Amino acid sequence: MSNKFRFFVSELGAFVNFPSISAQPQHREDVKNCAIWLGRQLLKIGLEHVNVIPTRKHPLVYADWLHAPGKPTLLIYGHYDVQPVDPLNEWIAPPFNPIVREGFIYGRGASDDKGQLFTHVKALEYYFSIHRRPPINIKCLFEGEEEIGSPGLEEWMSANHLNLKADGAVVSDMRIPSTEQPAITYSLRGMLAMEITATGQKQDIHSGTFGGVVYNPIHGLCEIIASLHDEDGRISIPGFYDSVLDRSPKERKYMKAVGQKDADILHDSGAALPWGEKGFSVYERSTIRPSLSVNGIKGGYQGDGPKAIVPSSASAKISFRLVPEQNPKHIEQLFRNHVHAIAPEQIQVSIKILAGAKPVVVSLTNPFVQAAAYAYRQAFGQQPIFLASGGTIPIVNLIQEQFNIPVVLMGFALPTDNMHGPNERFSLANFYRGILTSIYFMHDLAEASSNS
Amino acid sequence: MSNKFRFFVSELGAFVNFPSISAQPQHREDVKNCAIWLGRQLLKIGLEHVNVIPTRKHPLVYADWLHAPGKPTLLIYGHYDVQPVDPLNEWIAPPFNPIVREGFIYGRGASDDKGQLFTHVKALEYYFSIHRRPPINIKCLFEGEEEIGSPGLEEWMSANHLNLKADGAVVSDMRIPSTEQPAITYSLRGMLAMEITATGQKQDIHSGTFGGVVYNPIHGLCEIIASLHDEDGRISIPGFYDSVLDRSPKERKYMKAVGQKDADILHDSGAALPWGEKGFSVYERSTIRPSLSVNGIKGGYQGDGPKAIVPSSASAKISFRLVPEQNPKHIEQLFRNHVHAIAPEQIQVSIKILAGAKPVVVSLTNPFVQAAAYAYRQAFGQQPIFLASGGTIPIVNLIQEQFNIPVVLMGFALPTDNMHGPNERFSLANFYRGILTSIYFMHDLAEASSNS
Repeated sequence: MSNKFRFFVSELGAFVNFPSISAQPQHREDVKNCAIWLGRQLLKIGLEHVNVIPTRKHPLVYADWLHAPGKPTLLIYGHYDVQPVDPLNEWIAPPFNPIVREGFIYGRGASDDKGQLFTHVKALEYYFSIHRRPPINIKCLFEGEEEIGSPGLEEWMSANHLNLKADGAVVSDMRIPSTEQPAITYSLRGMLAMEITATGQKQDIHSGTFGGVVYNPIHGLCEIIASLHDEDGRISIPGFYDSVLDRSPKERKYMKAVGQKDADILHDSGAALPWGEKGFSVYERSTIRPSLSVNGIKGGYQGDGPKAIVPSSASAKISFRLVPEQNPKHIEQLFRNHVHAIAPEQIQVSIKILAGAKPVVVSLTNPFVQAAAYAYRQAFGQQPIFLASGGTIPIVNLIQEQFNIPVVLMGFALPTDNMHGPNERFSLANFYRGILTSIYFMHDLAEASSNS
Repeated sequence: MSNKFRFFVSELGAFVNFPSISAQPQHREDVKNCAIWLGRQLLKIGLEHVNVIPTRKHPLVYADWLHAPGKPTLLIYGHYDVQPVDPLNEWIAPPFNPIVREGFIYGRGASDDKGQLFTHVKALEYYFSIHRRPPINIKCLFEGEEEIGSPGLEEWMSANHLNLKADGAVVSDMRIPSTEQPAITYSLRGMLAMEITATGQKQDIHSGTFGGVVYNPIHGLCEIIASLHDEDGRISIPGFYDSVLDRSPKERKYMKAVGQKDADILHDSGAALPWGEKGFSVYERSTIRPSLSVNGIKGGYQGDGPKAIVPSSASAKISFRLVPEQNPKHIEQLFRNHVHAIAPEQIQVSIKILAGAKPVVVSLTNPFVQAAAYAYRQAFGQQPIFLASGGTIPIVNLIQEQFNIPVVLMGFALPTDNMHGPNERFSLANFYRGILTSIYFMHDLAEASSNS
């Protein structure tokens, strides 16, 4: 390992040090400080027009270098915000005090997305320090709201068309099957995240005196949640599957050939037994089929021992993963209709939308995908496969639909990186190979434009 | 208001000052300090053999005065432990910093049971200070575990038979319909409190990657909870109603005549609409019919905003109110059978018992009930009615079954005292009338024994 590369790891550690949890108001300053730190890094390595742009919540970090006339312009997207960290007691080290162990750096955001974002920053640093300039024009756009659905980014992008003009965009916020097998992602699920609250009487009351007399909002919430799936693991909201795109037998066959094996996905999940929609493989269920997860629930007494109350309210965080051609706004309406049709009159049910994003399929026939495949071959010694992903990156749909820029989804995270869970980590081997991949990627984009 | 009575209120305030929450381990010392304070009060007024008796959790406070040969011995039971206080932000004043407002003292434990327990202590203080002695023999037994099912008391009572020999017992830990209408309670519901936990994969995982692939323990828990009631508001656990005693038409007619009106119970609950078992009035549902309440639920992400996870576990606190002749041990087995029959194989379900108590009916034909009725007439100017209560006091069954001591249940709390909820309070009018009632009660027990 060269000294340069060792230094890169300690800088990644410094990046992970910031508790930039976008969902939690108490971390607002941390998110901002992380943005400022990232902006300084970009300035230091040689980028221009570095700008930490305020939005209604968390800032965007923009920078560019546009002195390669005749060469293509690449938009590099990433996000520096991270998921919440609880349950804290399951971490082997404090989530914002990263440690390196057996070839992995552990910390919240190590792989999602600070480590992957950093591969491109460090590739640019390589170009500036060795060649004094990158081989192509560069625009960097790093946001602090990806984990909460990118509300500020969408607003800012609509108002700033010109700045984002580019020939192609690269997003590294996804997984590859293993350190040996790179992959280009061609399909992402969309998302709709909500909070649903059931409210009964105005305050908690004695369950000895009133148990059996008033309807319990926890019962009500549980009955709503229990009504969301049928016995075949399908989502039982009327109309939910109407817009789901049927995938061709050819695509399903290719997925089966190159995709992760069902047993491996199950192993990575840590679950003993699979579950889900009948008629589809585990891999298909997690990528080209929609899903619904309850992400959290709370209501009533949360402390030790018993407490004899009927609580006044209960709430749950529920999120969908959506697939083409489902639209989050339409799904929201179907969900509201379903809930209001079944909720008993004794409770009030309110639904608050927390985030939404459209599903997306990216084209595999553009020159940026060719360059990515070349770069992967050079850095990993292996031809990439093409993967459907179960995750969501709201920006991808915006870049494609609003700016008509082809996107390449080039990931470096591993299935065992514990993204969103305790002990998130990032493989140092993939970090270094990611930097090399990005160097080769920019190189090939420059070469291809010379040859054309 | 005499100066003496004013002083009583400030002492009740000092009693309520102790955050003696028996369910929460962090309040262990507070419970103990409250017991010591109470013991000192008993010593100060003139009781003997004052003893703060350690149990495995929270101490019992015992004291007696046995110098009235030929007179009956009265066992006075009460509890100095209280319910947890959350949601804290709904209190008009800090729960352990009581305030007096418009004739009520507000604070956790004000009515349940510190205020009611104190009526007897203050009646004894009256006797010692005015007559230098009570008119009958007295044993006081005040416990610190009532709100968690009295585990230590049961152990100690089994091992200390002789100490508790008495001719009758009085328990003041229940409600009367209004300040104008006293009542003697003749029936209490039993109780079974549990914590049920559903566990899936070993840690929280990314719901983009794994949503739709593993079974979500929150779904599982909600499905279990949704399965516990049928559409008629009946508990749908097989065999649950087999031992429920049918009440006679005569009893139901009397209940309807003297009991709280359905509209009033609903008003007190703060709910807009009633709910519950078809075929029974609201009053019957809350007293002579069993019920099941989910007291709390938690699982997954509890913070602000969205978090894209499938949580690894979820748990709920569930409690039954049981009626004669239901046995908590038998109901526990029926619940376990039901849950294990319906829980899907993808999750592990564990059930932990938190507390249990048998339902009880007390006889209305013993001389202690006659004395209580006399005392109520003197202090309230009104003949008491006889009420079935929905609450539970584990000791009552123990006193009756193990010691064969007749019990009289003489309450002073009001339906609007917010027991177990925020802003618990106790009417000062009832506090003073309660003290008078206890004075007349002891007086009549002494007189009756002279006449017999």
